[in-house]
Amino acid sequence: MSKNIMEYETVELDEQEGGILIIDQTGLPGKTEIIRLRTAKEIWEAIYLLKVRGAPAIGVTAAFGIYVLAREIAGAEKESSGGKSVVFENFYKRFKEQKDYLDSARPTAVNLSWALNRMDTVCKKAHEDGKSVEEILEILHREAKTIKEEDILVCKAIGEYGLSLVKPGDGILTHCNAGQLATCKYGTATAPIYLGQERGYHFRVFADETRPLLQGARLTAYELHSAGVDVTLICDNMSAMVMKNGWVNAVFVGCDRVAANGDVANKIGTSVVAAVAKRYGVPFYVCAPTSTIDLATPTGDKIKIEQRPAEEVTEMWYKERMAPEGVKVFNPAFDVTDNELITAIVTENGIARAPFGESLKEMCG
Amino acid sequence: MSKNIMEYETVELDEQEGGILIIDQTGLPGKTEIIRLRTAKEIWEAIYLLKVRGAPAIGVTAAFGIYVLAREIAGAEKESSGGKSVVFENFYKRFKEQKDYLDSARPTAVNLSWALNRMDTVCKKAHEDGKSVEEILEILHREAKTIKEEDILVCKAIGEYGLSLVKPGDGILTHCNAGQLATCKYGTATAPIYLGQERGYHFRVFADETRPLLQGARLTAYELHSAGVDVTLICDNMSAMVMKNGWVNAVFVGCDRVAANGDVANKIGTSVVAAVAKRYGVPFYVCAPTSTIDLATPTGDKIKIEQRPAEEVTEMWYKERMAPEGVKVFNPAFDVTDNELITAIVTENGIARAPFGESLKEMCG
Repeated sequence: MSKNIMEYETVELDEQEGGILIIDQTGLPGKTEIIRLRTAKEIWEAIYLLKVRGAPAIGVTAAFGIYVLAREIAGAEKESSGGKSVVFENFYKRFKEQKDYLDSARPTAVNLSWALNRMDTVCKKAHEDGKSVEEILEILHREAKTIKEEDILVCKAIGEYGLSLVKPGDGILTHCNAGQLATCKYGTATAPIYLGQERGYHFRVFADETRPLLQGARLTAYELHSAGVDVTLICDNMSAMVMKNGWVNAVFVGCDRVAANGDVANKIGTSVVAAVAKRYGVPFYVCAPTSTIDLATPTGDKIKIEQRPAEEVTEMWYKERMAPEGVKVFNPAFDVTDNELITAIVTENGIARAPFGESLKEMCG
Repeated sequence: MSKNIMEYETVELDEQEGGILIIDQTGLPGKTEIIRLRTAKEIWEAIYLLKVRGAPAIGVTAAFGIYVLAREIAGAEKESSGGKSVVFENFYKRFKEQKDYLDSARPTAVNLSWALNRMDTVCKKAHEDGKSVEEILEILHREAKTIKEEDILVCKAIGEYGLSLVKPGDGILTHCNAGQLATCKYGTATAPIYLGQERGYHFRVFADETRPLLQGARLTAYELHSAGVDVTLICDNMSAMVMKNGWVNAVFVGCDRVAANGDVANKIGTSVVAAVAKRYGVPFYVCAPTSTIDLATPTGDKIKIEQRPAEEVTEMWYKERMAPEGVKVFNPAFDVTDNELITAIVTENGIARAPFGESLKEMCG
């Protein structure tokens, strides 16, 4: 068995050797390998090929990435000018190019643009304030580290609020991976579990395998197991049985977007778990950083759902095709859970309950 | 694409060449191969290795099997006695041995023992009635063919009753494989679909892939697709989304056992579909030959649920392990659906509705 996941950093800036260190998530659960990203191409590919995934982790990788590249750009400029101070306009032209390049790695991941835009804004602001490129590099360094620190603080706060909703020894079911691997520490849906683990709560966790991409089996079961959490892997269609058996006291899931009325878009299958939890009287909690609350989207049916290739269902992972050639496949990546199936939405600013129209505004306020 | 599944016999006695012909279901969906079973070992292995599966199809295979072996036994006896008439006691000793051997192929499949016992009873009865071994062979032949014909009639009757519950163009969702491949023709849950197909009903069918053994992807999607039915494969966790989208007018599933109060044991995940259907107001129908109605079992919680190996979830089918080594897995083969989630139970004798305690008794007459 590999080292405890809590001893790893999902994304880390290597201050000594340079570059970014990440766990290559495409090797999991078979191989836990830390890889170093130095060049723009390496960073872009790591995001594109899902070596790093999970919206918060992607955002932090992009922030560290554009900082690493900014330093490289400044160094090259200095060299080509024979050691003179770097001209901002020359520096910024390349900075902007690299930012746009990184931003193209996953066009739909909102945190990617968000983090890069935040770094860009800081860069332009510092120039307007009369800072030199050397000083700007320091400011970018600080901003990228702040983005990571904020992610950890947000996850930890969600964890504390989530923990207040359960008690030692409880059974917890989770779906997909909204875990440490998707963030910088603790995860969102897993934050109450990890905090409980630190405090001897002895939760019994059930991880849905989460077809078709199996993030529950490959990532959640992996990280919880490595952290010594009592985790049991189940297929997605076993949730009713574990709930009917009385083994589950709460469901915690992450989310991709929360509409203003509390409808939640999250990994496909989330709304199945919610319907089953409702049936068996199990509270259903969505863990959502306020950055995922989208007050401009009134209801869940306004959220566009990404459709993905049939091969993910029929071929991927398999030794041979598991469905007949030519059969139609419906493969949505996400679904929307109706707000009436949701017991509460747990944010870093507190716990929102129905009516969500008001409570979510309060969380964001 | 292979030939229309409706042109195949799942199980067939070859009157000319001898032996039993079956579709080797372990090759599906990649390879549609008819294999011939002649010896006791071949028949036993076909059942044991799931080359033929589905309770009704196993029962018919066993009935044909013991008939084929009975003929072989009688032939060998005749030869060793120099052509004299076969002594019943010598014949029956070997008959009983082979019956017990076939019966050991899958100890839990109730139709296996049921069919073999029915053949045994007929055999002993004929002897008591003074029939010769030659005459007994004819009686066994007729009985085995009757078992198959009855299966087809039962499935067709379930199909007719099921068809009365839907209308042309409806969307139908099914789980696992209670299809033609599990019976001799039509299947149980698929019988309304095939009858509708014959009558130009143009159903749109959604087939749950049914983890972990993927019978929905491998068998149901295969057989419906080959029959020209408009079938769309989904992962089990997508049922809520297709129902919420309004694409499903009815759910039809098969069953392994119905308790006296209408609780239904069926493939794991059935109760998830039922809870989701309830949530979205979609009628949930269980297709059940009266042979599966067990009035001696008062409620579903008295039904013992088979637990299966973790490897089915973590390794089987996959190019590499999809979950960390050593992680706990809960892998029940079946679950129990509460009677209050069931709209109706469709039998060959009519449609049972709540209160099931009375209506099921009526169906069993």
